[in-house]
Amino acid sequence: MPPTDRIRDHAGQGATTVAAHRARRRLRADAARQLADLLRRQLLTDGFPDGTLPHESTLAAEYRASRNTVRQALDLLRAEGLVERLPGVGTVVVAEKYPHGLDRLMGLAETLREHGQVTNEVRTMGPVAAPAPVADRLRVPAGSDVLYIERLRRLNGLPLSLDLTYIPLDIGAALLGADLENNDVFRLLEAITGRRLGHAEITLEAVNADANSAAVLEAPRGAAVLMLERLTHLADGRPVDLEFIRFRGDRISMSGLLHRSL
Amino acid sequence: MPPTDRIRDHAGQGATTVAAHRARRRLRADAARQLADLLRRQLLTDGFPDGTLPHESTLAAEYRASRNTVRQALDLLRAEGLVERLPGVGTVVVAEKYPHGLDRLMGLAETLREHGQVTNEVRTMGPVAAPAPVADRLRVPAGSDVLYIERLRRLNGLPLSLDLTYIPLDIGAALLGADLENNDVFRLLEAITGRRLGHAEITLEAVNADANSAAVLEAPRGAAVLMLERLTHLADGRPVDLEFIRFRGDRISMSGLLHRSL
Repeated sequence: MPPTDRIRDHAGQGATTVAAHRARRRLRADAARQLADLLRRQLLTDGFPDGTLPHESTLAAEYRASRNTVRQALDLLRAEGLVERLPGVGTVVVAEKYPHGLDRLMGLAETLREHGQVTNEVRTMGPVAAPAPVADRLRVPAGSDVLYIERLRRLNGLPLSLDLTYIPLDIGAALLGADLENNDVFRLLEAITGRRLGHAEITLEAVNADANSAAVLEAPRGAAVLMLERLTHLADGRPVDLEFIRFRGDRISMSGLLHRSL
Repeated sequence: MPPTDRIRDHAGQGATTVAAHRARRRLRADAARQLADLLRRQLLTDGFPDGTLPHESTLAAEYRASRNTVRQALDLLRAEGLVERLPGVGTVVVAEKYPHGLDRLMGLAETLREHGQVTNEVRTMGPVAAPAPVADRLRVPAGSDVLYIERLRRLNGLPLSLDLTYIPLDIGAALLGADLENNDVFRLLEAITGRRLGHAEITLEAVNADANSAAVLEAPRGAAVLMLERLTHLADGRPVDLEFIRFRGDRISMSGLLHRSL
């Protein structure tokens, strides 16, 4: 074999080795994600009753994965803030993620009643001239006053969500003197109007928190936020509550049931 | 006034000025978020038919906001990848966010039919021994083989989601020869079983993409991802499809209707 061929051959082998190594690394990352997804569900649904994950070697055997894959999967969960590694103890569940129903229209305090106390810090409250898109959706004349409320909502003291709320002023005026710190707007709206809420149109998105929203929510800048836009109607169909809600992604999950045919 | 007091006084004024400045900045950030939330809905629902946002001064007048607040709101939308500033043109909509229904159980291609063609890159497919949490949910014996599929799903060539799927092998075996590149698993499951799908239990979360998932989805590391876990049942109630789906947050929004009473 002429020397140049030998060099080429050697280079070729080098490339192959690198490619094989890259492929292995990619496969391990894929396997780690796959394992992490299975573990994350278990730890979010109390699948580890004593709050401690099995030992790495146990997980490796149970999931037919390598120790390295298990370690990488646990790293993914740690990066999400769901587990922590305690020296001498192992990997413990530290997730504080609360379930929010997607099947029924409920206020936050109603939804999380069994998990603790929801308190609301009112950051801003007062009448504002309704911008066109708000007026349009609340079916009030553009430029007429609506009540604007901005609240930071906490569960047992931990920031959960930042809520921006618009309410027609004929209903909203009564909210100005209400105890918004300790009550859902939903409950207050039903009390004020003497009517039940009916339905809400919702849109959910995942967005990275901007610097200011992150600071308010006491989350890292860029943290994933579950953004909910919700237009709620009274049972008679009148729209009464337009909200833009940013839930901390690491504190809330939304669950529901979908049907193939309606 | 003794000199020390003068100094103290001066320092006090300085602190007050800083506090006032901080408060102003916070207020502008809050106002910018408020405005951005109104604009984001409009631009995601084709509220700017020619794809261009009104001039900053027009927006400032329309929303009774300062030019600085408008600029900061547009910056937030730009950071989310929803708009871009083109010199000589203005702020244009560049969002490619597609609506996904939360009301009916549908496959991705079905859901996005009017928006273009969904294609699937099968990254991995084959039988795996079902780990306990998978076996449990699919109601198959632990350790028995299930079909595992990993797909990168695109709409008109753009990466939309990374789907990890587990299917009982008695049904899944027929998928091994099927055209998974161009068909929803839902459609294939109904064709294979000759039965309709019934319902699915879903959980939605917002998470930051890990490095590998981000790379596969061609998104920045840490990008917000809408994570969907879904267990789908045949109409007779048998669970047949367990999926862990990561949607790019900047490409998908989920919409539905909630009712106060069921």
